[in-house]
Amino acid sequence: MFERKVKNFINVDPLQTGGKLTEEAKKALVEWGDGYSVCDYCSGRLEEIKNPPIYDFVHSELPEFIGCDVARITTGAREAKYIVMNSLAKKDAYVVLDANAHYSSYIAAERAKLKIAEVPKTGEPEYKIQAERYAEVIEETKKYGEVVLALVTYPDGNYGNLPDVLKIAKICEEYDVPLLVNGAYAVGRMPMNLKKIGADFIVASGHKSMAACGPIGVLGMKEEWESLVLRKSEKFKNKEVELLGCTARGASILTLMASFPHVVERVKRWDEEVKKARYFSEKMESLGIKQLGEKPHNHDLMFFYSEVLYEISKKAKDGRYFLYKELTQRKIHGIKPGLTRFFKLSTYGLSWEELKYVLSAFESIIEKYKKDG
Amino acid sequence: MFERKVKNFINVDPLQTGGKLTEEAKKALVEWGDGYSVCDYCSGRLEEIKNPPIYDFVHSELPEFIGCDVARITTGAREAKYIVMNSLAKKDAYVVLDANAHYSSYIAAERAKLKIAEVPKTGEPEYKIQAERYAEVIEETKKYGEVVLALVTYPDGNYGNLPDVLKIAKICEEYDVPLLVNGAYAVGRMPMNLKKIGADFIVASGHKSMAACGPIGVLGMKEEWESLVLRKSEKFKNKEVELLGCTARGASILTLMASFPHVVERVKRWDEEVKKARYFSEKMESLGIKQLGEKPHNHDLMFFYSEVLYEISKKAKDGRYFLYKELTQRKIHGIKPGLTRFFKLSTYGLSWEELKYVLSAFESIIEKYKKDG
Repeated sequence: MFERKVKNFINVDPLQTGGKLTEEAKKALVEWGDGYSVCDYCSGRLEEIKNPPIYDFVHSELPEFIGCDVARITTGAREAKYIVMNSLAKKDAYVVLDANAHYSSYIAAERAKLKIAEVPKTGEPEYKIQAERYAEVIEETKKYGEVVLALVTYPDGNYGNLPDVLKIAKICEEYDVPLLVNGAYAVGRMPMNLKKIGADFIVASGHKSMAACGPIGVLGMKEEWESLVLRKSEKFKNKEVELLGCTARGASILTLMASFPHVVERVKRWDEEVKKARYFSEKMESLGIKQLGEKPHNHDLMFFYSEVLYEISKKAKDGRYFLYKELTQRKIHGIKPGLTRFFKLSTYGLSWEELKYVLSAFESIIEKYKKDG
Repeated sequence: MFERKVKNFINVDPLQTGGKLTEEAKKALVEWGDGYSVCDYCSGRLEEIKNPPIYDFVHSELPEFIGCDVARITTGAREAKYIVMNSLAKKDAYVVLDANAHYSSYIAAERAKLKIAEVPKTGEPEYKIQAERYAEVIEETKKYGEVVLALVTYPDGNYGNLPDVLKIAKICEEYDVPLLVNGAYAVGRMPMNLKKIGADFIVASGHKSMAACGPIGVLGMKEEWESLVLRKSEKFKNKEVELLGCTARGASILTLMASFPHVVERVKRWDEEVKKARYFSEKMESLGIKQLGEKPHNHDLMFFYSEVLYEISKKAKDGRYFLYKELTQRKIHGIKPGLTRFFKLSTYGLSWEELKYVLSAFESIIEKYKKDG
């Protein structure tokens, strides 16, 4: 039996805070764990299955939630991005990405044989993506080839910055370039609506932000893209080529569905999550740990820069692992082993009590080593 | 809570008999269900994670089991096939498939923009793929374009036929065409070894035949293909492009690992499974239900042709759903609703007692309606 050591720890790993299963999802996992059990009453394609009610989920509940015309389940956000890119790809064409894009956005483009043009970020300390730079980059890139897609990461996974996505959507529309919003850290955490944004595609991650067991993602789009991106096989008329027929053919989709009512409710409490994040940021700064990225911050994912912890690591017995060890002893998980000077964390879903516990942990660790030094 | 109605039924669904979770896998599901929990100690890539011991599994246990140099975890067999096809694809090039290939093999080729040439099957009743036809089809196809890959389905998912894969491998080698063995219904059920076969790629399905929670698959290959198929990203040097960085980043991989010792043991009992299948086939024939495909049969997946059940369906109150309803009443799951004349089933993992129970169910159903008629 492989045991998960940190399962009862307070978790601040940005990858994990939005993916903790609800009790309903845990039950669904056990109920539907056997291979291909979701296909008990298969009628030819995953999204068409009515028992369990996948059809209703994919065709009405999910599109309504994210404000899209058409939704599909994928094996993850990166797979959803690749599906779009591979559908839109042309020889020597470009995708325009923000410089804060996740590595998998770059790799999805690479796999789809698209060239990449980057919208730069501002420098320290905010590392922001400015909407108007999309216009400049699209303009410039058009000189070298067709821009088949633009992508914005909302928020990015490093700084938790939320660019002005409405403005970016407007710019892309002016240039007639479809826009994909990578909402892997947004959908399931905060209110998100493709129609209100005015973009063409939205991508979400079930295991990152929708309390689901991975790998699972969501792809939402405007109706006009359906015939291209969800094109059917020539030989097998009911199968969608880019989805290879069926995608999340396992318990993962049932966990997504089981957690969904909870997820719909929790995004309504987003203001409270932002409040917690800002409180946390403020208290960390008072310990001499600087928050980079947008300030005041608008998301639970935060990046910190800490000279004080870095200085301690130079002298501590455990060297650069001292912080990891101290936090582990206090049953706090989520800051990568070896990091002290730059690290990110997420306050998503933590209670105020847990939040204060994590802050007091940082405080006591700093005090302990200052005393020793 | 979405309930699975058939979870305690005797299961003869070919999709499902090899994917039932072991007790160890069920525990792993619950332990690792939270999103991205397998990444607690991520060191940059899924296959490099040492805690839980994914590294050892992917780099030694798994390749040893399937006899390949290099193995990777994918989100399924179809995704593994696409990874290979997309890597090998060239403009106007061909893949040679057997006519019994799974629909997802065709669609993977379509997605990779490969043309398809088909190795025909023999007619009724065996529908066999003859090894020497690979030579003819490759020879003929070469006139029209490059053949970048051949694929053989071993066994196919319709008849459960096992073509002479050693001979096919030899032919492909002579023509210098790499061969992919789709072992979605083989690996995890019966002994399979890529090196002994002499092919280039092997593809397996965790949720179909390795007692894992889906979607999860395995891709094994000869070392010579590693640099092409697992090529690294230009910008992110440790990420593999075709895998989009990481694939089965969820509990599914832990279920595959948890069931693995059991799976290694059960393939050693393959002779007994074949014995059960042949017994079942023989008894069905004595009820007037004909087994199509290879005979004597060499696999648990069998296709049946039944005039007697079809005739009953014409008059039965429930029409073509009578068989499904009768089997459901007897707590037997796995023959699609509405089928009576042609259907497939699998005897994999059934005890002799269960086998005899299923046979007696068919017998009593036929008797009941004959009496009524």
